[in-house]
Amino acid sequence: MVGKHPLRIRIVTPLCDVSEEQRRATLAEVVQFTDLGIEFDIVALAAGPASIENPIDDALAAPQVVVEALKAEQAGIDAVIIDCMGDPGLMPAREAVSIPVVGPGEASLHFAAMMGHRVGCVSVLESVRPMLFAHARAYGLAEKLVSVRTIDVPVLEIEHNLAKLSELLYLESHRMIVQDRVDTIVLGCTGFLGVADELEQRLRTEANYRVPVISPLPAAALLAASMVWGGLRHSRRAYPQADRTRLPLVISQ
Amino acid sequence: MVGKHPLRIRIVTPLCDVSEEQRRATLAEVVQFTDLGIEFDIVALAAGPASIENPIDDALAAPQVVVEALKAEQAGIDAVIIDCMGDPGLMPAREAVSIPVVGPGEASLHFAAMMGHRVGCVSVLESVRPMLFAHARAYGLAEKLVSVRTIDVPVLEIEHNLAKLSELLYLESHRMIVQDRVDTIVLGCTGFLGVADELEQRLRTEANYRVPVISPLPAAALLAASMVWGGLRHSRRAYPQADRTRLPLVISQ
Amino acid sequence: MVGKHPLRIRIVTPLCDVSEEQRRATLAEVVQFTDLGIEFDIVALAAGPASIENPIDDALAAPQVVVEALKAEQAGIDAVIIDCMGDPGLMPAREAVSIPVVGPGEASLHFAAMMGHRVGCVSVLESVRPMLFAHARAYGLAEKLVSVRTIDVPVLEIEHNLAKLSELLYLESHRMIVQDRVDTIVLGCTGFLGVADELEQRLRTEANYRVPVISPLPAAALLAASMVWGGLRHSRRAYPQADRTRLPLVISQ
Amino acid sequence: MVGKHPLRIRIVTPLCDVSEEQRRATLAEVVQFTDLGIEFDIVALAAGPASIENPIDDALAAPQVVVEALKAEQAGIDAVIIDCMGDPGLMPAREAVSIPVVGPGEASLHFAAMMGHRVGCVSVLESVRPMLFAHARAYGLAEKLVSVRTIDVPVLEIEHNLAKLSELLYLESHRMIVQDRVDTIVLGCTGFLGVADELEQRLRTEANYRVPVISPLPAAALLAASMVWGGLRHSRRAYPQADRTRLPLVISQ
Amino acid sequence: MVGKHPLRIRIVTPLCDVSEEQRRATLAEVVQFTDLGIEFDIVALAAGPASIENPIDDALAAPQVVVEALKAEQAGIDAVIIDCMGDPGLMPAREAVSIPVVGPGEASLHFAAMMGHRVGCVSVLESVRPMLFAHARAYGLAEKLVSVRTIDVPVLEIEHNLAKLSELLYLESHRMIVQDRVDTIVLGCTGFLGVADELEQRLRTEANYRVPVISPLPAAALLAASMVWGGLRHSRRAYPQADRTRLPLVISQ
Amino acid sequence: MVGKHPLRIRIVTPLCDVSEEQRRATLAEVVQFTDLGIEFDIVALAAGPASIENPIDDALAAPQVVVEALKAEQAGIDAVIIDCMGDPGLMPAREAVSIPVVGPGEASLHFAAMMGHRVGCVSVLESVRPMLFAHARAYGLAEKLVSVRTIDVPVLEIEHNLAKLSELLYLESHRMIVQDRVDTIVLGCTGFLGVADELEQRLRTEANYRVPVISPLPAAALLAASMVWGGLRHSRRAYPQADRTRLPLVISQ
Repeated sequence: MVGKHPLRIRIVTPLCDVSEEQRRATLAEVVQFTDLGIEFDIVALAAGPASIENPIDDALAAPQVVVEALKAEQAGIDAVIIDCMGDPGLMPAREAVSIPVVGPGEASLHFAAMMGHRVGCVSVLESVRPMLFAHARAYGLAEKLVSVRTIDVPVLEIEHNLAKLSELLYLESHRMIVQDRVDTIVLGCTGFLGVADELEQRLRTEANYRVPVISPLPAAALLAASMVWGGLRHSRRAYPQADRTRLPLVISQ
Repeated sequence: MVGKHPLRIRIVTPLCDVSEEQRRATLAEVVQFTDLGIEFDIVALAAGPASIENPIDDALAAPQVVVEALKAEQAGIDAVIIDCMGDPGLMPAREAVSIPVVGPGEASLHFAAMMGHRVGCVSVLESVRPMLFAHARAYGLAEKLVSVRTIDVPVLEIEHNLAKLSELLYLESHRMIVQDRVDTIVLGCTGFLGVADELEQRLRTEANYRVPVISPLPAAALLAASMVWGGLRHSRRAYPQADRTRLPLVISQ
Repeated sequence: MVGKHPLRIRIVTPLCDVSEEQRRATLAEVVQFTDLGIEFDIVALAAGPASIENPIDDALAAPQVVVEALKAEQAGIDAVIIDCMGDPGLMPAREAVSIPVVGPGEASLHFAAMMGHRVGCVSVLESVRPMLFAHARAYGLAEKLVSVRTIDVPVLEIEHNLAKLSELLYLESHRMIVQDRVDTIVLGCTGFLGVADELEQRLRTEANYRVPVISPLPAAALLAASMVWGGLRHSRRAYPQADRTRLPLVISQ
Repeated sequence: MVGKHPLRIRIVTPLCDVSEEQRRATLAEVVQFTDLGIEFDIVALAAGPASIENPIDDALAAPQVVVEALKAEQAGIDAVIIDCMGDPGLMPAREAVSIPVVGPGEASLHFAAMMGHRVGCVSVLESVRPMLFAHARAYGLAEKLVSVRTIDVPVLEIEHNLAKLSELLYLESHRMIVQDRVDTIVLGCTGFLGVADELEQRLRTEANYRVPVISPLPAAALLAASMVWGGLRHSRRAYPQADRTRLPLVISQ
Repeated sequence: MVGKHPLRIRIVTPLCDVSEEQRRATLAEVVQFTDLGIEFDIVALAAGPASIENPIDDALAAPQVVVEALKAEQAGIDAVIIDCMGDPGLMPAREAVSIPVVGPGEASLHFAAMMGHRVGCVSVLESVRPMLFAHARAYGLAEKLVSVRTIDVPVLEIEHNLAKLSELLYLESHRMIVQDRVDTIVLGCTGFLGVADELEQRLRTEANYRVPVISPLPAAALLAASMVWGGLRHSRRAYPQADRTRLPLVISQ
Repeated sequence: MVGKHPLRIRIVTPLCDVSEEQRRATLAEVVQFTDLGIEFDIVALAAGPASIENPIDDALAAPQVVVEALKAEQAGIDAVIIDCMGDPGLMPAREAVSIPVVGPGEASLHFAAMMGHRVGCVSVLESVRPMLFAHARAYGLAEKLVSVRTIDVPVLEIEHNLAKLSELLYLESHRMIVQDRVDTIVLGCTGFLGVADELEQRLRTEANYRVPVISPLPAAALLAASMVWGGLRHSRRAYPQADRTRLPLVISQ
């Protein structure tokens, strides 16, 4: 599987409107992997929510994510990443297409589970807590996710509060380590761009805590590429191939 | 809360196309409860899947279920039932509205968990097995659901195979009791209409097994009515109220 | 099953001595459901504990609850409710009779599990904590019950401390929401009569927490009636019918 | 604690009627431990069930077991064993007295959990299966008990079918090893007297399976004596001491 | 099995260097059981770590523990106890020999699980926390171990800080009871010699907490002796007998 | 991290004796990844077991694996893979060094958990079953590993039975899919070299089962490389850095 150059991964941002600046920041998060022969592109949804903060946003985004996964497969893309910690549309997209579809929520939790024993996730709003715990349960990793804390800043305000964001992430991460005995941190929003390394270093230099901080998008990118390189596909017994005669319904929506 | 006459429950069938015959059969499943002062009506989706057999169908139906829940609340309906064992749109609809939204999957599993120790669910196609187990896990009832077996008849062919349906349900239920030590049976599709009593009796008379057979739609109806009569509402800490400024997006879709 | 008028439910208070005042307060807790055609009566035990606060009280009450369940069935009663959060005698009574026997502990936990994700129970004395957690485990709902807190007032002193009771319940409920992230509250004693609505409203108006407060007796009443209306019975594979030749032993005790 | 000679253990058979022959057979099961300076005596209940095969029998026996535990403590006995795999009255008796109260169900499951990874229990009647699994859950050992199989012979008929008993235990044990991959066997009835060694040897010589067969009464005896020798007592935070003013109620019953 | 006098138990201290003083203190911990006809001796390892505080120490000790178990069996010893809470070499030693091999970690957790509902373990250094929780999981007792706290004193400094040790154990135990609702305490290091009784009494007299404090070495001794007296052996289906042709490799190492 | 060319991964085969043929076959399993700029080398242990089939072999190998991990780090190697499904020495090696140490057991289980819902592992001998289940539990993936089946061929005989191996793996995999409803297969021995693709294709063409077959060594290689590329390290709070003053003991052994 390796040798097929370049490997093409599409990042599907499950929102209707993504600024050029945000696109650039998102691509910057994975740019380091282009040296491995991976090409990334980004698409937003034709229609969908402005941000994903609760199950309603998730429900609105999911059908369009399936559409984009189908389009990506038809365009010869090798793997799809859903650019949201809530993994909207992950399960149906896997039934729709045969290429790997990877969610940053699932990918980052699995990486974290291999880095440590007690994982903490620092995310945006209180309203995402139930969803993140439900996902950990669905992915079979409930035992590992011991804490979810939030900075209580809506997704759309993140880019206007980068300095404050950095400070809030540090404070909540510190609390998770001290109070919840977390040993591994997952950033709980794919909009937390370019902050993982700084947070990891600050925890180390200011508090002498050497814990990995996992950024969900790079984790998803590495996993998606690994699946392609290793010739791995999702099980068709677990994700049965969708009936071809029913798919036009999705496309035409 | 009791005394408000009549109590109005809307059954939202998460499909784009429902025959008049199917409507009548669905209403017949809960007609016995009209003596309690409950009025039922049924709506189908403006757009959506033809049947729900996998996560793609579920994803297509969910946003429209939210729309119908909002419409129902605006029309003064007391509670909404989603007419599908997969409970599509259950979580987002609860965030969108303040009236009870009940899924037959969750309702029937809870009733079954109170009737016995080992619950078995007999459903349509192999492809729904992972979804049913995932739901049991999400609802906190994973320990109780010990078996899911399927008759391998697509939903849309059920109404043309009623005699065969009856036989297949009996055979798989019998197997679940003998081989999986199931003591309580849940019908795993809201399209299995009018068959629960017959199945329960046949298991008793032919095999001397006295196990309850729970039909999901009546279970959901009783639960929805109980919530209204008891003044119970879903927790807003668990299902935060959706931001009003974001809801038009749903409606206009 | 519906249409059988009136539906008769017997509340078995598992104590040897119940004041007329307490009877009235208990019936008041479910009086709202009489409009649905339900008749309630209450019986106390011929012999038994003065209150139920630990496994000894539970053991003393259980055989007499079985006796009362048998008497109720012989008298043509439709369903029995055990008037205690500890559900004493629930399992044996289900084996003794064929009518539904419902415990407020099990019923309220199941309702709570459907209202939210993280259930907290506020009860009387520290000594009931292990019992409530053990029941959640036995009912398959261990994952949902995340907190049990107590007001440390013995059951028999509750009726002389109603104002203080109200305050204590508020304080512990508030703590469960803030410190234990509870989103749904169950009153952990069937002697907490007439306080659920006030507590729910106070949490909403004073602290802006919109969480349901579930009173166990009404929850049990709604469930018992639902079982009768829906023609549901406990599984005889889970609760094997007691040998008729052994039952006189119980009756004659 | 060691050195107090002799150590006195009372076996409380939770039945109303125990033949002299049965007493002798029961004492024979633990006679080997008298060399360690332990004296055993046996008492039956003043009133209670003829055998324990379901939750009703359990409920009838429990209060009397508490009475006998109190009497034993007053008589200076060092520890009490409840002579039934269902451990009736175990929890309340621990709250009533300060000497160790040990149940063969709990003791044998713990020993088995230390002997192997997958424990199977072979018992009398189908009706005890839910109870045994519920106990494993309550004792925190649910993961270890992977199988319960029954020989379908009522307790009272065991002594008239000793040859057949032996054969049936062998067959079900063999099945548990082959089909359920059990590696450790617990005899699921304290009425299975004098058969453990033979069963263990037969599994070894006839089928080449070297699995321990744990007899519940000796397991309980060893544990009870170990607690006395080691100065160990049940936690009063877990089993709060029953209020002295309430105990006469039990005694006088 | 009883009557074989004396019963010989070997304590294998998995360290390369054990002072005479430490030997005496270790034997003093179990001296009370010699009245039961048990003879104890102690051996240290020919090579191994100076203390066991992390997985590296554990890995270094394990092969030598197997060697000592083999030697003990060849010398006619009846049972082996590994003198370390981390149970290094427990699983492989059980495969190597046919006599019981008991670890204080497993033994004390099982005893604690029978004494109460919520077990807390107070140990030496933060670095042993993951190991103790992992063991509870491996032994099937994860539900019972609710807290591990540490006094942050390295093992090798314990004997020079006995007064401080006593105070630190009291403080952490008190915290576990109050903050973690622990009802049963396990000393988390076999180097905490001669302090269990004092700690138990101090918790009772100073704080009115009546919780058992379990010392791991006596717990292991009682369990090992019980296995010999009861004729119990580890299951050969769970711990397959090591191939004789491969064992010299171990011995010669 | 990417761009550092070439990335060097050392495969530590935890055996004392590895033939040249086996080395070549092992390297062939990961040769496809050299195009990504990864260089692999293999080392065997100075002393250790001839194969790893039980906890004794594991205990013998673990200290030497730590030694090899230290040597690799000193030699500037980027990551270490332990070439055995039992992951011997994984935990201690992570405490000894700062470079990633990856076990094929953990890596392949995590990949499998992302490919499907029900994972089955086909391995060599019955004696490895408990170890594989224990690892799944330790890694937090117990829910996902639903079946372990074995071909009952000792590791050392595999290379002389390649045709038979292929047939046996097919038969057991087929059984796992049909009888245990497995949807994803993990090869349970790193000695099953060069057979994954053939098995996956045969399951598809002969039985129409489209399930991924995961070879553990490539899975570990992809994960180790991903960690280096992504700048991820094991948490020092989960795997505390071993005390430098104690490490010489390991080295000198």
